[in-house]
Amino acid sequence: MDIKAYMAELGSKARIASRHIAKATTAQKNEALLNIADSIKKSRDTLLAANQQDLAAGKEKGLEAALLDRLELTDSRVNSMLEGIRQVAALDDPVGEISDLKYRPSGIQVGRMRVPLGVIGIIYESRPNVTCEAASLCLKSGNATILRGGSEAINSNRAIADCINSGLDSAGMNEHIVQVVEITDRAAVGELIANPEHVDVIIPRGGKSLIERITSDAQVPVIKHLDGNCHLYIDDSANIEKSLSVAINAKTQRYGTCCTLESLLVAEAISTEILPRLCDKFVSHDVELRGCIKTQKLVSSVKAASEEDWKTEYLAPILSIKIVSGLEEAIDHINEHSSQHTESIMTEDHEHAQRFLREVDSSSVMINASTRFADGFEYGLGAEIGISTDKLHARGPVGLEGLTSQKFIVLGDGHIRT
Amino acid sequence: MDIKAYMAELGSKARIASRHIAKATTAQKNEALLNIADSIKKSRDTLLAANQQDLAAGKEKGLEAALLDRLELTDSRVNSMLEGIRQVAALDDPVGEISDLKYRPSGIQVGRMRVPLGVIGIIYESRPNVTCEAASLCLKSGNATILRGGSEAINSNRAIADCINSGLDSAGMNEHIVQVVEITDRAAVGELIANPEHVDVIIPRGGKSLIERITSDAQVPVIKHLDGNCHLYIDDSANIEKSLSVAINAKTQRYGTCCTLESLLVAEAISTEILPRLCDKFVSHDVELRGCIKTQKLVSSVKAASEEDWKTEYLAPILSIKIVSGLEEAIDHINEHSSQHTESIMTEDHEHAQRFLREVDSSSVMINASTRFADGFEYGLGAEIGISTDKLHARGPVGLEGLTSQKFIVLGDGHIRT
Repeated sequence: MDIKAYMAELGSKARIASRHIAKATTAQKNEALLNIADSIKKSRDTLLAANQQDLAAGKEKGLEAALLDRLELTDSRVNSMLEGIRQVAALDDPVGEISDLKYRPSGIQVGRMRVPLGVIGIIYESRPNVTCEAASLCLKSGNATILRGGSEAINSNRAIADCINSGLDSAGMNEHIVQVVEITDRAAVGELIANPEHVDVIIPRGGKSLIERITSDAQVPVIKHLDGNCHLYIDDSANIEKSLSVAINAKTQRYGTCCTLESLLVAEAISTEILPRLCDKFVSHDVELRGCIKTQKLVSSVKAASEEDWKTEYLAPILSIKIVSGLEEAIDHINEHSSQHTESIMTEDHEHAQRFLREVDSSSVMINASTRFADGFEYGLGAEIGISTDKLHARGPVGLEGLTSQKFIVLGDGHIRT
Repeated sequence: MDIKAYMAELGSKARIASRHIAKATTAQKNEALLNIADSIKKSRDTLLAANQQDLAAGKEKGLEAALLDRLELTDSRVNSMLEGIRQVAALDDPVGEISDLKYRPSGIQVGRMRVPLGVIGIIYESRPNVTCEAASLCLKSGNATILRGGSEAINSNRAIADCINSGLDSAGMNEHIVQVVEITDRAAVGELIANPEHVDVIIPRGGKSLIERITSDAQVPVIKHLDGNCHLYIDDSANIEKSLSVAINAKTQRYGTCCTLESLLVAEAISTEILPRLCDKFVSHDVELRGCIKTQKLVSSVKAASEEDWKTEYLAPILSIKIVSGLEEAIDHINEHSSQHTESIMTEDHEHAQRFLREVDSSSVMINASTRFADGFEYGLGAEIGISTDKLHARGPVGLEGLTSQKFIVLGDGHIRT
């Protein structure tokens, strides 16, 4: 098969479909979403059978257990997919929202209208439920989507795509609004990211190396999420009990998420009071502690941290700890070493809180709260298509609004420029 | 000189300076701006002398008259620069604005804070006043800037940069907040656009070929403005007198701007009533008319338009004209052929107006108004750093807000995730 021609055709169909979905009403989009859920519900057995094929092929190829687990669709995972689609249908439609409409001295009214981005390319790895999540969010936000999942999930993704297409069709909508790339060859990704004529933005989901490669090669803008080296700074004016509770929650509630705490900074003035107690708690959670020399002197269970540790996202029960002179050093250390994902301060001092909020350059900045809150659902965005560590367009969790943009609208009554 | 090392050092200094300017108060930034204006006022003679050097070198090299004109600084152009800086100082500071702060069911408050982008690289051609405009807007929006002007303006740009640095210095601010690239070799541009570690966004200003080359080579996100193939559609329900006035204004008020009308669409039902009168007016303005077969049959002064004409930004007294069956065909033609810059409809029909507003996918969409209004000042943004024909981040005129982004902020009181 000619991969270049195949991908160009997919792109061209997506561009046409994007004009259809952009003008669909909220009711039409919700009907399509609910039809897709119905279709998945009815095709549950077909879906699970297709997934079994992928699992069998994966085992044959010797995929790791963790990968096979992510690949697997179970009854409860299918139920979550259905629940997810219905939640997206229930969200407010961002498209068409008009804001800031004001009269100008010339007599024209100028405002902004929220509009879809157009065609969104999603590149992801083994989890087949991403097919469904991404398609729902793009559809609700008025975008056409080209989905390129992992080759190991191709049968599952095809089966899900069939359900999506049948749902679109029964709602009277263009079936190319959601397209799954049927080619498992990597060259297909290369074509997708090099086609600015037909693709408006690429959202890669997966490991850091995949995302870095895509970003470096893409001719299309990328909304990307790299790592989450998240910090908590315990200020000299922090409340001890709140700080203990937040630090333990941020590190131990879940080890593998991008908003898990990876590096703890403690103001020197409060360190003798809090660090021994806090480290005891971490040790009782089996968290390995790696600290600066001062921390090691204070707490014997702490190993030496290397320069590398300050930049590392462990995604594991390991925590780096550094004693800093105060707010200034904490902010400098964070802006130098963090991945600009999520950072939090524990403080009862108003000025310190305000300075931290303003001066820390990360996508989420928190006061007296666990970094684990950095999540689309917790922020009230509904589902999220990912978390952006970029600075342009969208920072932090990306929900429906992040899949849209704003154009200017001008209302006149025969106004001319003089 | 080692260009790579020079540009890397510039970038690294800009990154450090960006942290200083990001936390500057509004008063500090305004003081710096007014000091820069004072410094330019005092150095007027030095500036004009440096500019004379550039002009002499340009004449020697045989630069075209139009280029030499753009390169020239006159007393009145220096006055405009001063006026521009003072206007930017008078604009509201977008940085630090908090919006949408709401309580979530978990008890945390979640909102957004407007923040600078960081380091902005501006690549432009001969006009030295861009140095001053771009520096002012970036400074006010809390960003550090690296300015790379045309080699033919290097002496003028250096002289302006000296004034900017002295203004920053006398306001007690880091002088690397604004840096001018002193190397005229093109390789410097290559280094600037390939340095995502130190540069957050590139804004190229200049001809389409320059911008396309930069976009294609950049490893840093680009906010770009390509061409402005702007349309006016006269609907069957349009008011004739308003339409005549708007069409003439959109085309003839200025021929060389990106929001000048380039292609006129007329609903067939109204074409016999309006086109002969309108074409007479255009002819009396010496506008060359190129139309579809139907238009040619109706008006003898109209030449035949080729397929190429529907996609062309003339920037000249030439207009393409097409008779369409109605709204549907007009929208389809625009979405197919326009450069997604600015399009307007003349109509008295509410539903047609609403559909045009919603379905035309351009950065500015207008009802009953001249396309010539697509401009930062007319929209109330104050000065603009450019107009974006991109879909991500910013569409249309880009003012101070377009040079910022929003991060999430979370306020808690020891809240943890359960």
